[in-house]
Amino acid sequence: MTENPASKPAAGLYLDDLAVGDVFRSGEYALDAQQITEFAARFDPQPFHLDDRAARQTLFGGLAASGWHTAAITMRLLVLSGLPLADGIIGAGADLSWPQPTRPGDVLHVESHVDSIAPSRSRPRRATVIFTNQTLNQRGEVLQIMITRLIVERRPGG
Amino acid sequence: MTENPASKPAAGLYLDDLAVGDVFRSGEYALDAQQITEFAARFDPQPFHLDDRAARQTLFGGLAASGWHTAAITMRLLVLSGLPLADGIIGAGADLSWPQPTRPGDVLHVESHVDSIAPSRSRPRRATVIFTNQTLNQRGEVLQIMITRLIVERRPGG
Repeated sequence: MTENPASKPAAGLYLDDLAVGDVFRSGEYALDAQQITEFAARFDPQPFHLDDRAARQTLFGGLAASGWHTAAITMRLLVLSGLPLADGIIGAGADLSWPQPTRPGDVLHVESHVDSIAPSRSRPRRATVIFTNQTLNQRGEVLQIMITRLIVERRPGG
Repeated sequence: MTENPASKPAAGLYLDDLAVGDVFRSGEYALDAQQITEFAARFDPQPFHLDDRAARQTLFGGLAASGWHTAAITMRLLVLSGLPLADGIIGAGADLSWPQPTRPGDVLHVESHVDSIAPSRSRPRRATVIFTNQTLNQRGEVLQIMITRLIVERRPGG
């Protein structure tokens, strides 16, 4: 894998630093067939994720990464560069869709958009922030759309 | 990890075999701290997934598996025993929530429920089947709720 620096500094962001409409872009992650089949053998052992020849006979038409592999790489990209949240990326839930398969040779990055910020009623220093995180390859094709509901806190003492 | 046999036979099921209300139960998967930290180092390198002592200072109060690890294990359980679909488990998308953390020592299994079956308009032999898959531990605590939209085909020639 290769990972380029992100386009945003990795400074720790708090709720105070986020506004609806903010956009973040992660570094990159290069995926190859070996990573795809290793992940699949462990977590999603189906022919279209394990063997290119077998995959040609399926809906996928060739080796494709498990959607859960794309999701896990997306999380890595968000943690290491895409969403530099000071208290970490703590998700209450996520909605995923995979508009097209992730393939060997794809170089992934994530573009994240702040959709909404809903302050907690019971904990005034906390909010649920909804981000739409699109995972794209080097051709700009959207491979995954992950909408995450994250718990984000205000800056201590702020 | 240990994996017990599933409670349902691993016979390949087609759309013809599914009905709203059907319930499936997977085998089991035992999770330990080493698996949690290995997965996190690769895909979700945050303190609460990497180190128990550091995790005690966080919202999690102790080492917790990445939600993406719980999702990946859930997929493994579905593929190997929980949802024995003849053409495989092919998801167009998924909604996830994590009501409580997955911990070292948890033994996971998945209970799946057929929520709805929507025939494709363009492809009459195909339907989108919505399953709610609950991932539970050995105490029956729900760790994850995964609602999946799967593409399921009729039995060939049926």
